[in-house]
Amino acid sequence: MKASELQNRFERIRSNKTFEIFVISVIVVSALLVGAKTYDMPRGFASVTLILDWFISAFFLTEITIRFLAERRKLDFFKSFWNWFDTIIVIVSLIPAESTDLALIGRLVRVFRVLRMISIIPELRILLVSLVKALPQLGYVMLLMFIIFYIYGAIGSTLFAQINEDLWGDITISMLTLFRIMTFEDWTDVMYETMEVYSLSWIYYLTFIFLSAFAFLNMVIGIVVGVMEQENAAARREAAAENNEPTLEDVMAELKSLRQTVDEIKQK
Amino acid sequence: MKASELQNRFERIRSNKTFEIFVISVIVVSALLVGAKTYDMPRGFASVTLILDWFISAFFLTEITIRFLAERRKLDFFKSFWNWFDTIIVIVSLIPAESTDLALIGRLVRVFRVLRMISIIPELRILLVSLVKALPQLGYVMLLMFIIFYIYGAIGSTLFAQINEDLWGDITISMLTLFRIMTFEDWTDVMYETMEVYSLSWIYYLTFIFLSAFAFLNMVIGIVVGVMEQENAAARREAAAENNEPTLEDVMAELKSLRQTVDEIKQK
Amino acid sequence: MKASELQNRFERIRSNKTFEIFVISVIVVSALLVGAKTYDMPRGFASVTLILDWFISAFFLTEITIRFLAERRKLDFFKSFWNWFDTIIVIVSLIPAESTDLALIGRLVRVFRVLRMISIIPELRILLVSLVKALPQLGYVMLLMFIIFYIYGAIGSTLFAQINEDLWGDITISMLTLFRIMTFEDWTDVMYETMEVYSLSWIYYLTFIFLSAFAFLNMVIGIVVGVMEQENAAARREAAAENNEPTLEDVMAELKSLRQTVDEIKQK
Amino acid sequence: MKASELQNRFERIRSNKTFEIFVISVIVVSALLVGAKTYDMPRGFASVTLILDWFISAFFLTEITIRFLAERRKLDFFKSFWNWFDTIIVIVSLIPAESTDLALIGRLVRVFRVLRMISIIPELRILLVSLVKALPQLGYVMLLMFIIFYIYGAIGSTLFAQINEDLWGDITISMLTLFRIMTFEDWTDVMYETMEVYSLSWIYYLTFIFLSAFAFLNMVIGIVVGVMEQENAAARREAAAENNEPTLEDVMAELKSLRQTVDEIKQK
Repeated sequence: MKASELQNRFERIRSNKTFEIFVISVIVVSALLVGAKTYDMPRGFASVTLILDWFISAFFLTEITIRFLAERRKLDFFKSFWNWFDTIIVIVSLIPAESTDLALIGRLVRVFRVLRMISIIPELRILLVSLVKALPQLGYVMLLMFIIFYIYGAIGSTLFAQINEDLWGDITISMLTLFRIMTFEDWTDVMYETMEVYSLSWIYYLTFIFLSAFAFLNMVIGIVVGVMEQENAAARREAAAENNEPTLEDVMAELKSLRQTVDEIKQK
Repeated sequence: MKASELQNRFERIRSNKTFEIFVISVIVVSALLVGAKTYDMPRGFASVTLILDWFISAFFLTEITIRFLAERRKLDFFKSFWNWFDTIIVIVSLIPAESTDLALIGRLVRVFRVLRMISIIPELRILLVSLVKALPQLGYVMLLMFIIFYIYGAIGSTLFAQINEDLWGDITISMLTLFRIMTFEDWTDVMYETMEVYSLSWIYYLTFIFLSAFAFLNMVIGIVVGVMEQENAAARREAAAENNEPTLEDVMAELKSLRQTVDEIKQK
Repeated sequence: MKASELQNRFERIRSNKTFEIFVISVIVVSALLVGAKTYDMPRGFASVTLILDWFISAFFLTEITIRFLAERRKLDFFKSFWNWFDTIIVIVSLIPAESTDLALIGRLVRVFRVLRMISIIPELRILLVSLVKALPQLGYVMLLMFIIFYIYGAIGSTLFAQINEDLWGDITISMLTLFRIMTFEDWTDVMYETMEVYSLSWIYYLTFIFLSAFAFLNMVIGIVVGVMEQENAAARREAAAENNEPTLEDVMAELKSLRQTVDEIKQK
Repeated sequence: MKASELQNRFERIRSNKTFEIFVISVIVVSALLVGAKTYDMPRGFASVTLILDWFISAFFLTEITIRFLAERRKLDFFKSFWNWFDTIIVIVSLIPAESTDLALIGRLVRVFRVLRMISIIPELRILLVSLVKALPQLGYVMLLMFIIFYIYGAIGSTLFAQINEDLWGDITISMLTLFRIMTFEDWTDVMYETMEVYSLSWIYYLTFIFLSAFAFLNMVIGIVVGVMEQENAAARREAAAENNEPTLEDVMAELKSLRQTVDEIKQK
């Protein structure tokens, strides 16, 4: 009897509006704290942040425990991606931020608490899910892009490694340089350098820019078309449902039934 | 009797075509004056601009007064955003431009008189309203963008503050640097600097560029889809209204009425 | 009789396929000549280009005369924009290219002969016309853009003229600098310079970038939507015409005529 | 009898799933080998790569021979573009990679083996075919773009060749510089340099940027509209086929047949 009572109480807490707002506030405070720590702070402030940090850690731990206990079937808790997401962030940020060894890691890990903003606000969750869903559609275009980068990277490091070790040393560095060229970042400096040795190397750069721009354009169009199709389909379904408009099928059915009656009249 | 007469006269002035063109001319002159002041001018010209400036101020004040008095119910004047907009610009630009203390502020404030171009040309007003209306749709994508910037800003200032205080000093400066990276402005210089200390820091830059580009793309698509939906809906409504085309519903209604007649024939 | 005979002969020449191909070849040769002159040439080649240039000039003059004479009503010749276009290019490029005074102008003017490629190839003409037609739709967005540039230019030259005369000297230079910032070209260098004096001036740059990007986006969307609407309308009309598909109106008309017959039956 | 038996065996090998996966693995290994060679390797590793390289060459030769022999009508083999593609890559990469004379060419040629990824994965093949198909649609816009580049290149090298030989020496170099300006890569540096001599030369740069941006925009819109039209047409056809929905034509046919019956009734 007592267990079930507790269960109900936890469920009530979880779905309590005030509790939810309080959770969001604590997340915002933890985010501000992360930002504040990047400024030079007066001495006294450091101990305040230390206390705040411990309070936030404790609060997050409590909150996740409440959400776990509020679940009727405990295993269901682990079926939600967002529960895993929150739990891992909370557990990992228990690493002490002030111990000398792990200070840097501890501070970095606390940054990810800001991500809890995404898990707590449903609209952001939907946005992120739709972003992730768009990715596999792009799988093959991205593979093609990678092949383009790989081939040009291999050619680049074969031909230009002697000219500039820092830009074309091996295939990884070359691909980074190619990404830089794709963003048009001082790409002519890179080109002019190699053109002094191979005066026709501008062909290498121009073909790369055209190919990658073309593949990239294809990627963007792929996303746009995909999104639009979904939007259009959704809009059509909505319009049909809302207006309760007759479809061509309804007209046809009505016509056929009329036909039957007319035939009956004829046979009389 | 006299008050009502004046009222009518003011209304007539306000809606007078010549008056409107004169107002636009004065706004254009005030805009040109603002531009002219940025050039080195001969001595005599300075006093001319001073006189012109006072004339423009006086004229704008008169014009806004006429528009206020022309309103039958005086409170209605303050219901329009554009009346507020104009009144504030006119009042604020009464600050003397030549007093030594406020000279700079006075000159800056006069620049905003150019904005009256927007309030006086209806097409620009519509354009601006539609731009502002598009913003809230983007609310959550912009929040997501801010979270990305905030997290990367916090990581950046935690890891790279020692390397370059000017670029990564605190979270605000880091976010400005990240915006710079998002615009691809000499981003490799920033990257190569931190790669000397953390050789894997290119992962930080590449993931940031991909995430922010992806979120930005989503934002653009969001706007495009929104605009297109409105356009399509408007186009459909227009087409239907213009052509006086029968809809499927009309066909269905006609069919049902025909059905009834046929049924009546059958029962005879 | 003789005049009419000549008329016919000219018309036949104008519409002759071989003549057309020959005209295009001469245009291509004149374009290549323009390009060739930018290289260092051996001595003898110079006189060859001189002769070629005179031949091209003479040929173009002959061609335009034939086209003029081939017109039955001489005034119709001047009704076509492209005839004006060709005539002006041909006349202007009669300026001697080798006289010492006008050498540079003469050479520049010959460059525009390449534009005859556009007037001679119908597809390019259509493309150019559609580009020009798209412009007025953008009128108000471009006015808004100009107002944004003008206001920021005035603010910029008021505040920053003392910091860097070359970038912010007067409103024209400031607007050029703002265009540079809009293209993200070393914009942080400009910003860091003014941030040393006004540490908050990043607000100026960021708001400008957002406003101009937003207005620009609006412009692009405007074009895209405009183009798509035209395409969709054209596609719909084509589909309807091609398939000879019945429209809802046809169905309705058929239904009404059926109704009448049924009514007549009933009244019997 | 024996020949036919061999034929069948070859066909079975070619369509064998395990064989296909093995081919892909060998391609991936050959790609990794190409990448690995760009790193500094320990002595012993060199001979390993040499052996691997020979194995890959032998395997590719065997595979292409099997595919050739598996074809019933040998001439059909050469009708497929992808068979030519593979055969050429395989034959060309038989050039010994370690001979001193051809070492560089041999290594470069091996890079193109990575392209066999495209010929072996059907989705990438479709992607590439659709990319290539999109090109001719853009023919005239690209010609227009080239004319813009050519004219500006000729003007640039006529006016600016004395100012900077490296950027404006002849028309080819000028067009490369213009492409650089189109990508906004340090374009202001180029502009400021010529503005010192011709202070109005910013007009040259700005008009070029606007014209090329406009033509480029047109190109992108052309692709987008083309892709969307195909998508829409495909979607409509699919929807019609799937739902087995009646069309307006069906309704009309039904209506006309009904009409006939009613007419017959009337005449009774």
